[in-house]
Amino acid sequence: MIGFCLVGAGRIGAIHAANIASLPQARLLCVVDAIAAPAAALAQQYEARHCELDQALADPAVDAVLIASSTDTHVDFIVAAAAAGKAIFCEKPIDLDLPRVRACIAEVERAGTVLALGFNRRFDPGFSALYERLRRGDIGTPEIVSITSRDPQPPPLDYLRRSGGLFMDMMIHDLDMARWLLLEEPCEIYATGSCLVDAAIGEAGDIDTATVILKTASGRLCQISNSRRTSYGYDQRLEVHGSQGMLRAENVTATRLQHYAAGGVVTDPPLHFFLQRYADAYRLELLDFIEAVSQQRPPAVTGEDGLRAQELATAALESLQQGRPLRL
Amino acid sequence: MIGFCLVGAGRIGAIHAANIASLPQARLLCVVDAIAAPAAALAQQYEARHCELDQALADPAVDAVLIASSTDTHVDFIVAAAAAGKAIFCEKPIDLDLPRVRACIAEVERAGTVLALGFNRRFDPGFSALYERLRRGDIGTPEIVSITSRDPQPPPLDYLRRSGGLFMDMMIHDLDMARWLLLEEPCEIYATGSCLVDAAIGEAGDIDTATVILKTASGRLCQISNSRRTSYGYDQRLEVHGSQGMLRAENVTATRLQHYAAGGVVTDPPLHFFLQRYADAYRLELLDFIEAVSQQRPPAVTGEDGLRAQELATAALESLQQGRPLRL
Amino acid sequence: MIGFCLVGAGRIGAIHAANIASLPQARLLCVVDAIAAPAAALAQQYEARHCELDQALADPAVDAVLIASSTDTHVDFIVAAAAAGKAIFCEKPIDLDLPRVRACIAEVERAGTVLALGFNRRFDPGFSALYERLRRGDIGTPEIVSITSRDPQPPPLDYLRRSGGLFMDMMIHDLDMARWLLLEEPCEIYATGSCLVDAAIGEAGDIDTATVILKTASGRLCQISNSRRTSYGYDQRLEVHGSQGMLRAENVTATRLQHYAAGGVVTDPPLHFFLQRYADAYRLELLDFIEAVSQQRPPAVTGEDGLRAQELATAALESLQQGRPLRL
Amino acid sequence: MIGFCLVGAGRIGAIHAANIASLPQARLLCVVDAIAAPAAALAQQYEARHCELDQALADPAVDAVLIASSTDTHVDFIVAAAAAGKAIFCEKPIDLDLPRVRACIAEVERAGTVLALGFNRRFDPGFSALYERLRRGDIGTPEIVSITSRDPQPPPLDYLRRSGGLFMDMMIHDLDMARWLLLEEPCEIYATGSCLVDAAIGEAGDIDTATVILKTASGRLCQISNSRRTSYGYDQRLEVHGSQGMLRAENVTATRLQHYAAGGVVTDPPLHFFLQRYADAYRLELLDFIEAVSQQRPPAVTGEDGLRAQELATAALESLQQGRPLRL
Repeated sequence: MIGFCLVGAGRIGAIHAANIASLPQARLLCVVDAIAAPAAALAQQYEARHCELDQALADPAVDAVLIASSTDTHVDFIVAAAAAGKAIFCEKPIDLDLPRVRACIAEVERAGTVLALGFNRRFDPGFSALYERLRRGDIGTPEIVSITSRDPQPPPLDYLRRSGGLFMDMMIHDLDMARWLLLEEPCEIYATGSCLVDAAIGEAGDIDTATVILKTASGRLCQISNSRRTSYGYDQRLEVHGSQGMLRAENVTATRLQHYAAGGVVTDPPLHFFLQRYADAYRLELLDFIEAVSQQRPPAVTGEDGLRAQELATAALESLQQGRPLRL
Repeated sequence: MIGFCLVGAGRIGAIHAANIASLPQARLLCVVDAIAAPAAALAQQYEARHCELDQALADPAVDAVLIASSTDTHVDFIVAAAAAGKAIFCEKPIDLDLPRVRACIAEVERAGTVLALGFNRRFDPGFSALYERLRRGDIGTPEIVSITSRDPQPPPLDYLRRSGGLFMDMMIHDLDMARWLLLEEPCEIYATGSCLVDAAIGEAGDIDTATVILKTASGRLCQISNSRRTSYGYDQRLEVHGSQGMLRAENVTATRLQHYAAGGVVTDPPLHFFLQRYADAYRLELLDFIEAVSQQRPPAVTGEDGLRAQELATAALESLQQGRPLRL
Repeated sequence: MIGFCLVGAGRIGAIHAANIASLPQARLLCVVDAIAAPAAALAQQYEARHCELDQALADPAVDAVLIASSTDTHVDFIVAAAAAGKAIFCEKPIDLDLPRVRACIAEVERAGTVLALGFNRRFDPGFSALYERLRRGDIGTPEIVSITSRDPQPPPLDYLRRSGGLFMDMMIHDLDMARWLLLEEPCEIYATGSCLVDAAIGEAGDIDTATVILKTASGRLCQISNSRRTSYGYDQRLEVHGSQGMLRAENVTATRLQHYAAGGVVTDPPLHFFLQRYADAYRLELLDFIEAVSQQRPPAVTGEDGLRAQELATAALESLQQGRPLRL
Repeated sequence: MIGFCLVGAGRIGAIHAANIASLPQARLLCVVDAIAAPAAALAQQYEARHCELDQALADPAVDAVLIASSTDTHVDFIVAAAAAGKAIFCEKPIDLDLPRVRACIAEVERAGTVLALGFNRRFDPGFSALYERLRRGDIGTPEIVSITSRDPQPPPLDYLRRSGGLFMDMMIHDLDMARWLLLEEPCEIYATGSCLVDAAIGEAGDIDTATVILKTASGRLCQISNSRRTSYGYDQRLEVHGSQGMLRAENVTATRLQHYAAGGVVTDPPLHFFLQRYADAYRLELLDFIEAVSQQRPPAVTGEDGLRAQELATAALESLQQGRPLRL
């Protein structure tokens, strides 16, 4: 049984709290949040206590700290939890500042504790099934990875101004997918982007539509396309073209209903957004973390993975700004 | 090179004429039709001549007679063509009167010539691929055959009054499919039907919606469903559940286009009707006939097959009228 | 908050216990089972108590009794729970003996309590979405309902001998679906069946493959096909052909993965069996029951629904034995 | 009726000859080829004559010249046909040398005759349906175009050495698709590629795997991926993500057969290669050309279109060689 302290009682925190509560191997013991009301409410709902981080870290029943607070607080919470010898699960990114991320990871390593990053897509059942088949060689070696990732609508401008922009808050997930599916590190990146969805996004210094190409040392290629808007739900697809076949993970829908009408056959649109599409993934990433803690093995997604994806996002932004590919 | 005389210059005749013209192994030599104008036009289009049946049958260059005239004329044309030693391809049914059909087939057998029946669905690429896999044992032995066959809209009442009704003019195709896919003769039939599409069809003594169950001696089952109306095109599907798997032949569409919109993903409806859906089948059944004539082998669909399907249609009608299953 | 007493700690009982535990509106208070060990274990797992039915019924915190014990015990438990004024959720069937079922339902009515039947398929997300669209008229009025329902493998012979046979233990679900989707009561039934899967099933007096046709007073038709064996998972599909279109609910798969290989494109087989396919449905039927109890409204599936489906199963068996359709 | 002279009696020439012969509006009059035997055979098959180009151009019954000879002969044949006032249909590319292409097009313009280029994909029924819907605004304005184009296996090395390489002989089709679907001219291109399929291709100075990004002035993006090898047929797909939805044209298969087996559901692989996949497109591009000639309107694909695609292919190669994006 792993005892959890949840840091951050917002939307993502609430998802993690529900998943912790649903797992017989885990127990939510305390909720930490600077804003008292939601933390207290969440704590009460799961019969946990609302307390300060210090109190939580001092509690020997707390084995793990799950950090789902705002990005700028992650490093402090990670360092404190590591110092207290707690296992750590942190939402991405660790921090927008790369040197700070590296220093934080080094700190965790010194403390000898577990640090898992919340790249939940690796745990999507379709994506992980694709990965397993790729790993065991069902399509030979990967040659072209294609990642489609499009949100139903843009986040609030206020969020965009703090998030680090499209590459950092959105494509970072796809860059992690790219590393994972190429089975090799990218050594070159080229990014291009536009502002087509909302001019205000451009005025805020960001883009809302982007395509990126990554290349590995052995010549494997990856193309990523992002948009901040679909009119048809959350578009999340993977495709790996290998030397001996192709694997595609198509969008997930609520039902397999088909409506035959004069205008054609209508089936469900993709699930609306990440809360629906990655509901299983949120649960399964937590399960992996719990197993990693229990079995004292590294989690499936480490702080190092978070760092690498962030380095790629940073390079993508630089490539876009310089208008040329970058060697990594 | 097989020389053809086409009897019947209507809609189906025109399809056959075009297919004969497109095949290098065949040549359309003459067109026979009591109504001169369309016959002459069709003949001219393909550089054939418009003539009387006697003249055509007397021509040694005419190897085969393709009969696409109205049902009540089939037997006379078949008998005459057989007497002249010509190979015969006849649209179904041979005749609405079963004893007449049997006598006609006997006549053809005495003449020792080829008689092929126009059950074109056996030549639909999807259906024939399903059959080939079934025959070679890909799903073991068939256990439940399901045939869905629905027209976009009812034929004119005038046609219905002469056609022999739903079982004879529409389900007869599905009854042939049933015999073909069960890999055994049915020994029992139960038919039920309703008039749901158009009350006028009921007033004309017919039904427009029907389901039938067939059973073979070894216990294999077949269910057929027919409707005279869809609002989404021509619904033509087969499914065979076998001891080791299942084969399904789904509807055919014009394209593989997908339109993702807020309301869902829209794909093409099934092809509109038999002219579109069975365009390939019309051509391929002719090809089989030509090969049968050239190689002096029986055609894939014989007069006997036509007779059996018609006996089943007759039994279906009797079952419906008596409200009980019939042994065959 | 609805307090539950679970009667029956077997496989289905365990599913219900987990679902009760996962719902914030419900609490599992006690587990009743003649066999002590599994009951005690299940009780402990969910922090409930293992006790006798009398004790549970005497506990005012117990609002509802969920009966998942063997069929022959259902009536006694229902009657006792009704007498104690508890709301009742019972797995189908109430009893194999129709008069006993009717008497039991009458008893519950006299007691004025809620009785819900476990026809979980009505709560399958795909099936209920189909039903909602049908009800609101998306395809006009239903004309032909087609229900495909095939198990991956037969149950143990021992089970078959006690279950009432294919119509009673398996097709009863489909007969309930038929009533639900026809939007009218069937007035005629014709059943045919075979023993194709395992000769031992025939020797036990049962069939393993069946097709049934139902007809309503207005002429709507329903065809059902059942098999005790697929080699490709649990085959559960619905199709409703209406006056203005068609709705199909296709099989559900674990992922949307596509593997392109030389031999074709491979996608997931249907989910293995009812535990996988109807996991959501088990949870949602419970949710409906809890809402019904809370809001003092009838549940979506009543004892009356259980009775009607059972009458249809009984009539199907009679039709099979007599070799003719039966008026209902 | 348009009289045709076919130049080039190879594989592509034979396809065009068959299509000309099948169209009632066209007639194949003569076949020109430096190698006499295949030209004579093809001419005989369609009752045309085998002759020299001069003779054909002097024949007033020849309205159009269809050029399907080797690339290095195209310009001479085009110029001669234009001088003779004949309409011209030429396979792509006009020539590998861009200045020569420009001069050739200028020559044709001076002669005032029709020049159509053989970008047959625009006539693929699925692709042209997608384009029509895009044009009429079904998904708003295009934002991200994704083009997947992969051959089943590489051509002979000997061909690769003469063809101009992957961008010129293969991606040129996709570059034409890009221009067509972006509804705007690209103004920037970035190409990257690898040799993953066959080291001999790399030794011959070419690549066999490539991804390209194009960008237009208004910021629309297009990604193209090419491979010289699949193990699952000819992979030809389009996707356009627009401001109000998405259109996808998926691969075409021979049938809609589904085989349910323990390992999953198997459907047909994509059609094998261009002869199968683009059979309709070859016929429909010819039909457009014939209509253009008859109606004295420009063809759907002009010499100018050929030039633009070739400029893009040239720029792609330059981008690859320089390792940076190019402004166009």
